[in-house]
Amino acid sequence: MQMIEIERKFLVISDAYKKEAITTTKIAQGYLSKHPERNVRIRIRGEKAYITVKGASNTTGTSRFEWEKEIDIEEGKSLLSLCERPIIDKYRYEIKSGNHLFEVDEFLDENQGLVIAEVELTHEDETFIKPDWLGEEVTGDTRYYNSQLTNVPFSKWV
Amino acid sequence: MQMIEIERKFLVISDAYKKEAITTTKIAQGYLSKHPERNVRIRIRGEKAYITVKGASNTTGTSRFEWEKEIDIEEGKSLLSLCERPIIDKYRYEIKSGNHLFEVDEFLDENQGLVIAEVELTHEDETFIKPDWLGEEVTGDTRYYNSQLTNVPFSKWV
Repeated sequence: MQMIEIERKFLVISDAYKKEAITTTKIAQGYLSKHPERNVRIRIRGEKAYITVKGASNTTGTSRFEWEKEIDIEEGKSLLSLCERPIIDKYRYEIKSGNHLFEVDEFLDENQGLVIAEVELTHEDETFIKPDWLGEEVTGDTRYYNSQLTNVPFSKWV
Repeated sequence: MQMIEIERKFLVISDAYKKEAITTTKIAQGYLSKHPERNVRIRIRGEKAYITVKGASNTTGTSRFEWEKEIDIEEGKSLLSLCERPIIDKYRYEIKSGNHLFEVDEFLDENQGLVIAEVELTHEDETFIKPDWLGEEVTGDTRYYNSQLTNVPFSKWV
């Protein structure tokens, strides 16, 4: 699957989102390349595995080329073992807000304490219903890229 | 497909291999990551496209983790456009030698003049019939890695 991904990213200011979640899944992911113009990610999500390639973001950070393909779970685990350390572990919660789906990531381990919500949009100026637990927007702030959280985890931020 | 690849690599000293070739295919390939421990390649081979991940080599350079998956040709072309420049273009010839298949790569553009033969083996000390056109062994010489030929092409060697 190949597409241009348009999304906005926010901090989460309370754990009220957990009560509204329609799904909760454990995710482990690592990077074969963290280059911002040709990022290559291996993700194990529940019992499924994926390889994902992302291109450079546009200047506002909302839009990015993305290609993703499901792969065999055992092959995914082998590929994850090749990835740069550390591996990112997180829980992902899916929450409906009007016609939109928010994905909230609760990070674990070295990124414990960090909770980020993302909403995918069909065009850049699309409006959506803002949930009560949604905080400051961090779209385009590269510190919050998952690939950067393996370089400088949240627990090390000053 | 996931496997440990065992192969030996040689220079080619005449173009006699062309007469023995059972197939000839144009290949274009680029790299999303050239890291030797987590190399990610996009290859267009004829009308098919592949994504390939290779791990680190063993100390002799003969054996390497390799994972490959065929992908949609149009998606492959999009991914190739994300790769680091330059893209490697070459012709690949397949030549039988006894029970073994040699793959001979005739490089184009900046690597014009370089011709490399590879034979895949099932174990490291397996013997094979040496064709007349086979020259010096270069197994494990990283200068001949395709990923390195995009950094320092053959035409720039001194």
